[in-house]
Amino acid sequence: MPRYKLVIEYDGAPFCGWQRQAEDVTVQGAIEDAVKRFTGEDLRLTCAGRTDAGVHAIHQVAHLDLSKDWRTDTVRDALNAHLRPLPVAIVSAERVGAGFDARHSAIRRHYRYRIFNRRSPPALTRDHVWHVPWPLDAEVMHRAAQGLLGRHDFTAFRAAECQANSPIRTLEQLDVATVTMGLFEEIVISTSARSFLHHQVRAMVGTLMMAGCGRFGIAEVADILASRDRARCGPMAPAKGLTFVGVDYGPDREST
Amino acid sequence: MPRYKLVIEYDGAPFCGWQRQAEDVTVQGAIEDAVKRFTGEDLRLTCAGRTDAGVHAIHQVAHLDLSKDWRTDTVRDALNAHLRPLPVAIVSAERVGAGFDARHSAIRRHYRYRIFNRRSPPALTRDHVWHVPWPLDAEVMHRAAQGLLGRHDFTAFRAAECQANSPIRTLEQLDVATVTMGLFEEIVISTSARSFLHHQVRAMVGTLMMAGCGRFGIAEVADILASRDRARCGPMAPAKGLTFVGVDYGPDREST
Repeated sequence: MPRYKLVIEYDGAPFCGWQRQAEDVTVQGAIEDAVKRFTGEDLRLTCAGRTDAGVHAIHQVAHLDLSKDWRTDTVRDALNAHLRPLPVAIVSAERVGAGFDARHSAIRRHYRYRIFNRRSPPALTRDHVWHVPWPLDAEVMHRAAQGLLGRHDFTAFRAAECQANSPIRTLEQLDVATVTMGLFEEIVISTSARSFLHHQVRAMVGTLMMAGCGRFGIAEVADILASRDRARCGPMAPAKGLTFVGVDYGPDREST
Repeated sequence: MPRYKLVIEYDGAPFCGWQRQAEDVTVQGAIEDAVKRFTGEDLRLTCAGRTDAGVHAIHQVAHLDLSKDWRTDTVRDALNAHLRPLPVAIVSAERVGAGFDARHSAIRRHYRYRIFNRRSPPALTRDHVWHVPWPLDAEVMHRAAQGLLGRHDFTAFRAAECQANSPIRTLEQLDVATVTMGLFEEIVISTSARSFLHHQVRAMVGTLMMAGCGRFGIAEVADILASRDRARCGPMAPAKGLTFVGVDYGPDREST
């Protein structure tokens, strides 16, 4: 059973998230259906980070075991042909060893969150940004963000329905910067950790937004973390601004 | 009758172009309908560059004369409220003198064309780029483009239905570069001229694509221009890759 690693890009807008569901269109379901049409096999994909409804990805990673030893270009092109016209693309397919697991071999996940900060609504990027019409100070947001770095109990930034065993996570990066994203200037929040709690990124972004407009002080953001009180954090930022941008694997686990 | 200059952004995908039509949804029609709901007036907008169906804008300019002296922020916000949920936004409104004409005072138009050049289709930017799956050499495209600069008869790059009196245009800029556009690397073609013939930019881009994949030689692109033969130019690049990005006005004409 040759194992394949897929790099996957998708627009979250039309999908009810990654995870396969009986009724709704999901990214996992769409790719598994494409595999079925390609090889006739009923297979299950395992991915690096299951994303919520509306969340995008430019570098989701998943693995699957095919019964036949297909050329990697054939796997990529055949799946893309069967995925049409859904906005999901297999960017690459490669052969990996049986020890590679898209979820368990991952040592770091990377997300980016995009805020469109001007009075008028976005016409061209409306499904990919959070529109915040009042002025935000990205530098203040960055300084507040630094208070969340490191190993902490992130209960204050955790969804009620989060199923993780522990609320302890180690936040490795949380940078806020004003960046030219294609045709527009946006506030972009880049964050990395081995793993995140459910809704953690969006809860942190909503809290940083409150710091950026002066509703929370810079030190207050660290206080909210320390309080472990979900009621104190900012509003949850909308899913459409969030993109899964990458995942790191340890060198030993990726070898065949 | 106070005159207002509007800067307008829109996603071309759901619109049948700029120009008002009896049946179809157009950008001009949508904004004029919003003006009607805001002030009760039946007005006609004049814009800097009428765009075709599917073409986007981040800085279209139009003017209109309102009977009442509204605050500019009110004009912007009221029109945006009435435009919802269409993907068109009034970025700014300002008061200008009666001598300002969005179309006739313009001395230079700027367009950008985005090519997404990889094997797999784009999932996140599919409505805003031309997907070219075979390899293109952006440097060769740039060198070929330089042969089109200057004052020429652009008949070879003109739509059959073009209504301009003369096919003579002066192309001031036609740059091709590989650029990071937000989350992706793209080939971006930036072009400027006082005015363009109908379909000129898309016909030039299609011809440069043929140079980029080696089907046309660099010198051949200038030969096609000199031939004034529409049959020799490359395929017309699709509308969705094109964005109207700006317009320049002379300092004297913009004063009140």
